[in-house]
Amino acid sequence: MKVAALAGGIGAGKLLRGLARLEHELTVIGNVGDDMTHLGLHISPDLDSVTYWLAGVMDRERGWGRAGETFRAMEALAAIGGESWFALGDLDLATHLYRTARLAEGAPLTQVTAELAQRFGLPCRLLPATDDPLRTWIRTRDGRDLPFQRYWVAERAAPAVEAIRFEGAEEARPAPGVLEAIAAADAIVICPSNPVVSVMPTLAVPGVIEAIAARRDRVAGISPIVGGAPLAGMADKLMPAMGLEVSAAGAAEAYRGLLAAWVVDERDRDLAAKIEEREGVRTGVTDTIMTDDAAAERLARFALETLG
Amino acid sequence: MKVAALAGGIGAGKLLRGLARLEHELTVIGNVGDDMTHLGLHISPDLDSVTYWLAGVMDRERGWGRAGETFRAMEALAAIGGESWFALGDLDLATHLYRTARLAEGAPLTQVTAELAQRFGLPCRLLPATDDPLRTWIRTRDGRDLPFQRYWVAERAAPAVEAIRFEGAEEARPAPGVLEAIAAADAIVICPSNPVVSVMPTLAVPGVIEAIAARRDRVAGISPIVGGAPLAGMADKLMPAMGLEVSAAGAAEAYRGLLAAWVVDERDRDLAAKIEEREGVRTGVTDTIMTDDAAAERLARFALETLG
Repeated sequence: MKVAALAGGIGAGKLLRGLARLEHELTVIGNVGDDMTHLGLHISPDLDSVTYWLAGVMDRERGWGRAGETFRAMEALAAIGGESWFALGDLDLATHLYRTARLAEGAPLTQVTAELAQRFGLPCRLLPATDDPLRTWIRTRDGRDLPFQRYWVAERAAPAVEAIRFEGAEEARPAPGVLEAIAAADAIVICPSNPVVSVMPTLAVPGVIEAIAARRDRVAGISPIVGGAPLAGMADKLMPAMGLEVSAAGAAEAYRGLLAAWVVDERDRDLAAKIEEREGVRTGVTDTIMTDDAAAERLARFALETLG
Repeated sequence: MKVAALAGGIGAGKLLRGLARLEHELTVIGNVGDDMTHLGLHISPDLDSVTYWLAGVMDRERGWGRAGETFRAMEALAAIGGESWFALGDLDLATHLYRTARLAEGAPLTQVTAELAQRFGLPCRLLPATDDPLRTWIRTRDGRDLPFQRYWVAERAAPAVEAIRFEGAEEARPAPGVLEAIAAADAIVICPSNPVVSVMPTLAVPGVIEAIAARRDRVAGISPIVGGAPLAGMADKLMPAMGLEVSAAGAAEAYRGLLAAWVVDERDRDLAAKIEEREGVRTGVTDTIMTDDAAAERLARFALETLG
C-alpha cells in the first residue's frame, strides 16, 4: 500500500514515526513555507523536524531539534552581539551547512532533502512541497510585514495578525514526485500540523490542491486541535486570521473539499456529527495524544481505518 | 607613537600581543587572500586568528582557533557526509555566522571586522587589506588550480606548486584607512608571517606597496624563517615557487625595497651581513621565538629599536 502524507513539523514528526511502523510505501511531502535564509544559511525547519523525528534523533521532550543538542555556537554568537533569536543547535547547524553548501552547488532542494533523508537513514521518501521559493509572511495589525519565523520565534507570535500570505506560491511548481505521489497513493494523510502555516503553504502550490481533491475519497486528516486548543505550537494565533474557528471543526474546515475522513480526539466527540454534516466527511473519534511511538502507530492505523 | 602592522595569521597574532603591550596607537592590516566562502559562510581565517590572539581567546597550543573549542557541528556534518575538511569549531562558527549575516546585509568587510574587533575587545584597530574580493590560488605542477585553503588544508600543501596568484588583486582597492594608517605610522611592522600567502596578497593591492615604499625608512620586518625552516605553517612549500630561498635572507628578499630594518633569529646570525648588503637594510639579531607574551613584547620592542 502506498501512502502520501502532508506534513508540517513536530506533530507530523510524531505521527510519521507511527505511520512508518505500518511499513507501507510512504512518501512525506513537507512544508517549506517556514524556510528562511538566516545568517547565510538555508534553514528548512519543517523538513528538518520530520527528518529528525523519522531518524529517531529528535529531542522528544523539547519537540524541536536534536537529542543531546548543545548551543555553543549560538551562545558565542550572542556574546558578540549577533542574531541569536533563532536557536540553532551545534548538531542542527550541520544540517543547515550541508543544505546551504549543496544548494549553492546548484542542487535543487528535492535532491538535497533526499540526500539528507538517505544519510539520516529515513524509512521513507521525503519531498519538499516545492523547490521554488515559497515563504509564509505575516501581516500584523500594527502594520508590519514579518517573515514567518520572525513573527513566530523572534516575536513569539505575540502581535495580532491581520493577514497571512504565501509569497511565491503562485509561481511555485510542485517538486518532482509530489503530484505523482499524491496520484499514486492508496491513502493520503494530512498530519496533525498547523493547518494555516504547515499545510496551507503546500496546498497553495498550483496543482497540489487539485491533485488531492481528485483523490478526495482517499484523504484522511487528523485534527491538530484538541479541546479547542492546539496540542503543540500556536495555531490558535493564526486560524482566526484565516476565518477559522480554533477547534477540531475549524481545522476540518481548512481542508474543505479535500477530506474523506477526519479524526478528532475523544474530547471533541461532541463535534463529530457537526463536522460530518458540514464537511461531508466520515469522522473517527479516538485518543489522538501521541505519548509514544506505539500511540502514534495506533493513531496512524486508526486514521487509515477511518478512511475505510 | 603610531604603529601600523601587516599581519597574516598565527605568527602575527603572537607578535601583535606583544606589540599591543607597548601601548602605541596600533593599526593592524590583515591578510584576506586566505578568505573563502565555504558551506555558505564567509570565512576570514587570518582576520579571525589576529582577532582571537589579540582578544586572548586563542588556543595557544594549537595555534589556530579558540580556546575551549568544540567541533560538534563539524562532527555532525561529517556524519552526514558533508564537507568537513575545514575544521570549523562551534565557537568559531559564531564569528563566521556573524560576518556572513552582516555582509549579506550590505556591510563592507571593514565595518564587519571593526564590529568584531569591538565585540572581542581588541586593544587596537584591525583593518582588512581590502573590502574587495582578493583570493590566493595555487596552480599545482599536476595542472590543477586550487583555492588556497583547498591546497593548504584539504591537501595539506602536499602537491608541488607551479605558481601562486592573487585573484582580484588588480581591481582591489585598499580598504578605507589602510593607506592612511601606513602614511601616518611612525613605524610599520611586517609581522613574522608567511611572506608569500600572508603578506604578499596585501602588497598586491594597488597602492599599498607604493605607500609602504614611500615610508621605507620606517619599515621593520621580522623573519618568519628561522634556521632555514618556517617556525609555523608551511612557508617552505610556497617560497620556492616565488623564487625565494627558504631562509631569513629569502624572506627579506620578499620585501625588497620596502625594508629599513630586518630582524632575524640568533640561529641566523651568520646571514645578517649578507642580508644587510643585499637588501640595504639594518639587521637586528635576537631570540625571535615567542614562547609567551613577554617574549613577544621583547621582540616587538627590539624590532622598533632596530628601526631606530
